[in-house]
Amino acid sequence: MFDVASIRRDFPILSREVNGKPLVYLDNGASAQKPQVVIEAMNLAYSHEYANVHRGLHYLSNLATDKYEAVRATIATFLNAPSPEEIVFTTGTTEGINLVSYGWAAPRLQPGDEIVLSIMEHHANIVPWHFLRERQGVVLKWVDVDQNGDLDPQAVIDAIGPKTKLVAVTQMSNVLGTVVDVAAICAGARDKGVPVLVDGSQAAVHMPVDVAAIGCDFYAITGHKLYGPSGSGAIWIRSERMEEMRPFIGGGDMIHEVTRDTVTYARPPMRFEAGTPGIVQQIGLGVALHYMMNVGMAEIAAHERTLRDYARDRLAGLNWLDVQGNSAGKGAIFSFTIRGGAHAHDISTVLDRKGVAVRAGTHCAMPLMQHMGVGATCRASFAMYNTPDEVDRLVEALELCHELFG
Amino acid sequence: MFDVASIRRDFPILSREVNGKPLVYLDNGASAQKPQVVIEAMNLAYSHEYANVHRGLHYLSNLATDKYEAVRATIATFLNAPSPEEIVFTTGTTEGINLVSYGWAAPRLQPGDEIVLSIMEHHANIVPWHFLRERQGVVLKWVDVDQNGDLDPQAVIDAIGPKTKLVAVTQMSNVLGTVVDVAAICAGARDKGVPVLVDGSQAAVHMPVDVAAIGCDFYAITGHKLYGPSGSGAIWIRSERMEEMRPFIGGGDMIHEVTRDTVTYARPPMRFEAGTPGIVQQIGLGVALHYMMNVGMAEIAAHERTLRDYARDRLAGLNWLDVQGNSAGKGAIFSFTIRGGAHAHDISTVLDRKGVAVRAGTHCAMPLMQHMGVGATCRASFAMYNTPDEVDRLVEALELCHELFG
Repeated sequence: MFDVASIRRDFPILSREVNGKPLVYLDNGASAQKPQVVIEAMNLAYSHEYANVHRGLHYLSNLATDKYEAVRATIATFLNAPSPEEIVFTTGTTEGINLVSYGWAAPRLQPGDEIVLSIMEHHANIVPWHFLRERQGVVLKWVDVDQNGDLDPQAVIDAIGPKTKLVAVTQMSNVLGTVVDVAAICAGARDKGVPVLVDGSQAAVHMPVDVAAIGCDFYAITGHKLYGPSGSGAIWIRSERMEEMRPFIGGGDMIHEVTRDTVTYARPPMRFEAGTPGIVQQIGLGVALHYMMNVGMAEIAAHERTLRDYARDRLAGLNWLDVQGNSAGKGAIFSFTIRGGAHAHDISTVLDRKGVAVRAGTHCAMPLMQHMGVGATCRASFAMYNTPDEVDRLVEALELCHELFG
Repeated sequence: MFDVASIRRDFPILSREVNGKPLVYLDNGASAQKPQVVIEAMNLAYSHEYANVHRGLHYLSNLATDKYEAVRATIATFLNAPSPEEIVFTTGTTEGINLVSYGWAAPRLQPGDEIVLSIMEHHANIVPWHFLRERQGVVLKWVDVDQNGDLDPQAVIDAIGPKTKLVAVTQMSNVLGTVVDVAAICAGARDKGVPVLVDGSQAAVHMPVDVAAIGCDFYAITGHKLYGPSGSGAIWIRSERMEEMRPFIGGGDMIHEVTRDTVTYARPPMRFEAGTPGIVQQIGLGVALHYMMNVGMAEIAAHERTLRDYARDRLAGLNWLDVQGNSAGKGAIFSFTIRGGAHAHDISTVLDRKGVAVRAGTHCAMPLMQHMGVGATCRASFAMYNTPDEVDRLVEALELCHELFG
């Protein structure tokens, strides 16, 4: 039984004030807050159970290794991945996608080869491909969204040509909230023999994810958005793709043998994990994912749909406010501007005075902003712990903005 | 006034027992334990002051950004770097050295160009260069240590030929404890116009570091060995070298502008920091470095010299034990084997039964082990909170090993 009041009590920061007002945290698209169980798990790890992993045979090292490695299975369960061995720990989606770019794409793609992207990708799913364009002549092919912010899966499939080697697409836009039918894209791409990378940074926070059902090849998540610690994350990689990849980061733990003249590598997934990892962050991520699964991903999604519908109605009542992205099935993410020229930064500053935390800017999605013809927007992005009352607080603060700048 | 009893009280884990015995933690070369102030700083950050950095204009984001960015100056002070703008945040030394390999060396080095390394480098300072050997025909030139484990700086300088483009060398061996005269190496390399990368993973923990005095071009440190959180770290890069580097990890925060067809990059150091960083870990690292500087790096070094001398004497009294590395000025790191064939793993297991945590294996330094002609060793590595009593506990446990296996 989903109980938002009970959930809120699990997040210590939600009881604080900002600028003399109760905090209304609507910047979840940038990063989510952490429940006490995650904070306590990290405390326990550092104050009672800490050592480096993998390389020790002593009690604390074994204990830390067991707890750290168990998270691989937790992530596999969370994503419904076939095996924990297909989970590579990363510091977040950015590192995960760079791993695919450097480890899988860079050694395979030739000048003129294409990567198909949607126009609403986050920079994390753009810049690594721009590197390949700059450095080895790869061509980026963009698929636009319509005026509601919807992405037609068939348009993505149609963009796949004989030189296309990869499709890289988000499952949920961090600006528009659009949910992409990645399963349809993967089915079409598979027919054409082209792998698909899914950026799950936003989607995995807000809906059940099943990589087996999606049928993708790479699925990247980032722990700090999943109510977990900063610097945690993972990418699921289909084992056939893993076998095709060369190592990315070089160092300890990812080798089999090193001599003066040679190096051989460990089996995946260790091959892609170099050096001392983010031990305690990943342990914290495991606890965060258990917390989410205990609440229930379907229940989280249902609660956020309620928030979305309520926020959509309330914001629609403000006839001086434009929301970017009106996809019917969108997530509870609202990018908006106020008519009359008030700058997004000024709006966010006024909201902040009322305790309402939103983001302002181009949200690491400049090509989308150019496509939509907006320079900067505010973005209110909701999480499992937000409430309809907080939607009201947002609207009240926006009305104040309208008075001030209107 | 250095007071080891007082320092020990600052580290909660040191009061625990392991296998019914008080913990004697001598695996500091792998990772150090954390003082309560570091744990509390992370608690505070997560429970009261958390948001994503750089991209927000709201109170919590500004607060987190201020605390996070202040760590850049702390690291610069710790290393005596000329400017915080020359500090790039990393997840540790491994990422830092890979940044140099991918960002500086890969685009510059031609087939046949050389990198000079010492034989006692850690895999983190070997494998990234093996990548360049495998992928673009770079030649690795190795400089051996003598039988005491000393590295003659002149031998390194003499190894620099007309095709040498980089020297990459540790300041302190993680196996032998040898301290390398990196300033002498840098002076000689500078005369020949060759940059020097120093792996400071171990040295920065145990002695005052002054990158300006050393005269190197790159100095990499890793937070989890510096009494800071896992997943924290930094590399100092001389500004001239930074200007020569291309980006490594691509994503948010490191760009200036992204369009469908182009990308331009932020100024260094941001150019080299993509995506949401390890916000809270780096805040914790800042607190850890302040803790070290408050204790005093010279005082830490003096205490550890006392430990080294005492441990050296006590271990020398065990005529069935061989210590690898007898450099006069070595750090308090002791790699050893027991005559008669007891395997390092078995020894460490017996020590663990007595509460003594040491490492066993090849210590991510296989070329050194091959050079020394040993397969695996045990390693006892000391930190500021260790005591002469703990040396006695180690020796007692070793005597038990000798009885069992001798």
